[in-house]
Amino acid sequence: MGMETTRLFQRCLLLLLLLVGHCVLAQRPDSPAFSVVPLGVKGGLDEGNLSAYLVAASGSTSYVCLDAGSVYSGVEKAVARKVFTGSAGEVIRNNIKAYLISHAHLDHVAGLLLNATDDSPKSIYGLSDCLKTIQNDYFNWRTWPNFGSSGNPPALRKYQLQPLTPGQETALENTVLSVQTFVLSHGKPYQSAAFLIRSQNSYLLYLGDTGADAIEKAPQLRNLWQAIQPLVKAGQLKAIFIETSYANVQPPAQLFGHLTPALLMQEMAALSQLTGAAALRGLPVVITHIKPTAGNETAIKKQLTEANSLQMKLIFPEQGQLLQF
Amino acid sequence: MGMETTRLFQRCLLLLLLLVGHCVLAQRPDSPAFSVVPLGVKGGLDEGNLSAYLVAASGSTSYVCLDAGSVYSGVEKAVARKVFTGSAGEVIRNNIKAYLISHAHLDHVAGLLLNATDDSPKSIYGLSDCLKTIQNDYFNWRTWPNFGSSGNPPALRKYQLQPLTPGQETALENTVLSVQTFVLSHGKPYQSAAFLIRSQNSYLLYLGDTGADAIEKAPQLRNLWQAIQPLVKAGQLKAIFIETSYANVQPPAQLFGHLTPALLMQEMAALSQLTGAAALRGLPVVITHIKPTAGNETAIKKQLTEANSLQMKLIFPEQGQLLQF
Repeated sequence: MGMETTRLFQRCLLLLLLLVGHCVLAQRPDSPAFSVVPLGVKGGLDEGNLSAYLVAASGSTSYVCLDAGSVYSGVEKAVARKVFTGSAGEVIRNNIKAYLISHAHLDHVAGLLLNATDDSPKSIYGLSDCLKTIQNDYFNWRTWPNFGSSGNPPALRKYQLQPLTPGQETALENTVLSVQTFVLSHGKPYQSAAFLIRSQNSYLLYLGDTGADAIEKAPQLRNLWQAIQPLVKAGQLKAIFIETSYANVQPPAQLFGHLTPALLMQEMAALSQLTGAAALRGLPVVITHIKPTAGNETAIKKQLTEANSLQMKLIFPEQGQLLQF
Repeated sequence: MGMETTRLFQRCLLLLLLLVGHCVLAQRPDSPAFSVVPLGVKGGLDEGNLSAYLVAASGSTSYVCLDAGSVYSGVEKAVARKVFTGSAGEVIRNNIKAYLISHAHLDHVAGLLLNATDDSPKSIYGLSDCLKTIQNDYFNWRTWPNFGSSGNPPALRKYQLQPLTPGQETALENTVLSVQTFVLSHGKPYQSAAFLIRSQNSYLLYLGDTGADAIEKAPQLRNLWQAIQPLVKAGQLKAIFIETSYANVQPPAQLFGHLTPALLMQEMAALSQLTGAAALRGLPVVITHIKPTAGNETAIKKQLTEANSLQMKLIFPEQGQLLQF
């Protein structure tokens, strides 16, 4: 090879490397890591639209269902929006590989229970207290047939109740996802949970019902922010799903372990002190569990938007709509 | 008064009497005794459309809610159909005066529970075993806040749990209605209930989930038919609400305390042997609790219609639609 040719070859190689590098860097923030389908988005009352969020690794049709207040009605909406093909029953049986339940309050499990008769066998993951309530108070033949694997006989053994240990990462069966679990305070002494879902190097954080540390007089959210702050700084956390049940008018004594726009922003400020404000700019924050009482939804959207000095990307999800993060 | 005038007066009086008599006789069968608004009609899966039926005396807006699988979603549909004015929350608080629960399975109580936070204080009537399950397994702060009046403290005392004694008539608070209760067998050893609602001299019979006597090996339906047969013969029973969960293809061992078209017609034949077939002709029979699995609804409608040699008036109710009986 002559000097000219070698120089030309080197230049081409450099150009190629630059191009590839540019593509990789340019694509990383745009290429989504997670597909999410909200099956229910409201914080109470409306039986057909209660907290439930399907999450899969992008490109995969193997979803886990984070909370399960409404399932069938949400899948029907998603099928109508062409997010899924087939009947609601088929999607529930084939595409939902496991449930992760933040706590056992009825508005977070009713959809799972009501569809258990026609579901395929799978696992229900949750903190051990949550699973104990599901087994003892629902799967007891008095309120519902025993689709669990212990308790009041006969146990139909449709579901494996798999306890999650805070601080440990657990692989989620039949998906490429894994989860790390955090305890939340939901009106002392009642517990809820946050799920940090991982797909390769990307993360999605879902919080079940939660009060603010200041109101709950508990350090649970501060601990959670501490744990996830490196992921926020590194751009690996793709979205936070967090509740805002009540508007700011709700008196502190009547929060029942829930957040308002002011309290949510107070918690986001606490997180930003750990990450720096710039790291939160543009971060998708999906607002869940708005209670559908008169004027509440409008008030919450207004109050959150006005208080969003951190410039997070606030998302108000719709039932059956595909989201990508 | 002259002879002519007296004769004219007598003729007018006779005409008047004939007219009044005709109106009374003509109006009796046509003038409805009950208004019914189905809030949910399906037998499972679809969280927003599960067994719940509002019943009031005709002309009254004071309803009782027979079972309460879906409440809010059904009231929203009824408001959309202009059966009620106001928000769903207002209708639930103001127009539902009490709940009558046939049994505590989740698909018959979820709507009541999920709306309890925003409901007005009222009574829940049911057999004592049913109320015990509602108090202990739902109103326990683990699955749901304690809106009852005993059990795990603090009891929020929103609902008075009022046990119904089979064979006794009980006046239903804040309505002109009263109820007589019958025990049903819903997959031994589990109980359900039938409610015979009375408004003046008219009756409406609502059965919660029930198996057939032949399958349950129990005399509950025969006893019920025996008790109501005089009302059927006298034309005082205005409608029967009864379930048909599965099509005839369902194997007897997998009925889980439910009816098929063949079993329903078998039970109606048992009733007709007590009343004579003519008494059932044209009687409104409202088919509840059809399970919304693929093809099931179509099959059940076809099988019932084809087997209706008694010529009852079969009604397949729709959510939020006003019915008059």
